[in-house]
Amino acid sequence: MPDTEVDVAFLPSELRETGTAVVVDVLRATTTVTQALAAGYRSVHCAPSIETARTLRGPGRVLAGERHCLPVPDFELGNSPAALEHHDARGGEMVLATTNGTPAIVAAAQRASVVLLGCLLNLDALLTAIPSNTDVTVVCSGTDGRFALEDAYVAGRIVDRLTGDRSDAALAAVCVARAYADALEPLRESADGQLLGSTGQEADIAWCARESVLDLVPQVISNEDSVPVVTIPVRRLEVSKLTI
Amino acid sequence: MPDTEVDVAFLPSELRETGTAVVVDVLRATTTVTQALAAGYRSVHCAPSIETARTLRGPGRVLAGERHCLPVPDFELGNSPAALEHHDARGGEMVLATTNGTPAIVAAAQRASVVLLGCLLNLDALLTAIPSNTDVTVVCSGTDGRFALEDAYVAGRIVDRLTGDRSDAALAAVCVARAYADALEPLRESADGQLLGSTGQEADIAWCARESVLDLVPQVISNEDSVPVVTIPVRRLEVSKLTI
Repeated sequence: MPDTEVDVAFLPSELRETGTAVVVDVLRATTTVTQALAAGYRSVHCAPSIETARTLRGPGRVLAGERHCLPVPDFELGNSPAALEHHDARGGEMVLATTNGTPAIVAAAQRASVVLLGCLLNLDALLTAIPSNTDVTVVCSGTDGRFALEDAYVAGRIVDRLTGDRSDAALAAVCVARAYADALEPLRESADGQLLGSTGQEADIAWCARESVLDLVPQVISNEDSVPVVTIPVRRLEVSKLTI
Repeated sequence: MPDTEVDVAFLPSELRETGTAVVVDVLRATTTVTQALAAGYRSVHCAPSIETARTLRGPGRVLAGERHCLPVPDFELGNSPAALEHHDARGGEMVLATTNGTPAIVAAAQRASVVLLGCLLNLDALLTAIPSNTDVTVVCSGTDGRFALEDAYVAGRIVDRLTGDRSDAALAAVCVARAYADALEPLRESADGQLLGSTGQEADIAWCARESVLDLVPQVISNEDSVPVVTIPVRRLEVSKLTI
């Protein structure tokens, strides 16, 4: 049996057809989605743009996101995952629109059979959830179309624990991951980290650098009008049981 | 005075406007061009395609290149730099067309003021030739639109010796370069290296992995009908002197 392939797309535009895509935007969209589901949101609708998110307003829905790294004035929430930690989601739905992360999720949903969301908060849970019998591509969200160090670092951390034939990009991502003693340094050193620092949001960096503190893996479960809907499949089963 | 920026485009499609572009296709196009000029070719015309190269046939010109890593049947030469070492160029012009390298040179010539060609053979000479007062982008040629480990490795070797503000991609390239004890390992491990091995051209890998054995830096000096013409500016001056 030939080995499965483990690949990394350093930008969403590099993504090819794949079995399982793991989307990473550690600063901050995939961290925000993971924390939102942990906080009790039933689902997160990942909008490709601020404008699309506005069209999805509705009862029981909360709009969240950022533009140029800052909250959108008419949205209820920004893109800070730390702000969601003690947030009362009341089982509602979040509509999230960010510059790089949610467009990457949209791109992945068009090219992969299974789309998972990864960050450092859920690293161990993610590695348990990735199917072992399909090709896997870790999709880095990048920053405004440019390579993002912090996503490449997390991609390398993931690839380093997967079996399979590694592509050139996967080998390089592992080099990046192994070059740092801990996650905080590459997150701080990255252009995204610098921007968070210069906009008074430095606390989010250390918050996003914590590893394996949440035992859940967000997954795209449907694609409504090209807006991927992300939830935790296991919780969905539990909810189904409760309604029987 | 603000620092200049040092960036890496892991694929030609990522290249933005820049002061100096250093194009790298270590396996094998930029190595071939460097060796061709060392062998006495007056210039190398870098064609975006095999078809364009054919239209440039003419007296005193030699066609060289590859398709799918193998020589093109109606071309005089392939893309093996080793084969050029004892070749008698007789001061002629080479027309080169390769899958990844020459299109990358074409892309760089459209976006940078100064375009230099780099490989391992001319590493020291290249680092002396890169202007210190402009932004620098190392442009990796990649492999069929995908990230290429061997080019990222050489990019990291170059960036590691340049001063300036490093972009996220430049930081990552340095991680790749520092992860290997010598050049042969990443060149062999790369998809391009594997393909050369499987097509009986493994000897080219070790040949391309030798460092700083040629003291010359190919540079784009003109762009004739969107075909960059590469030569050694210093030698050109020497030739001019001789004709006085």
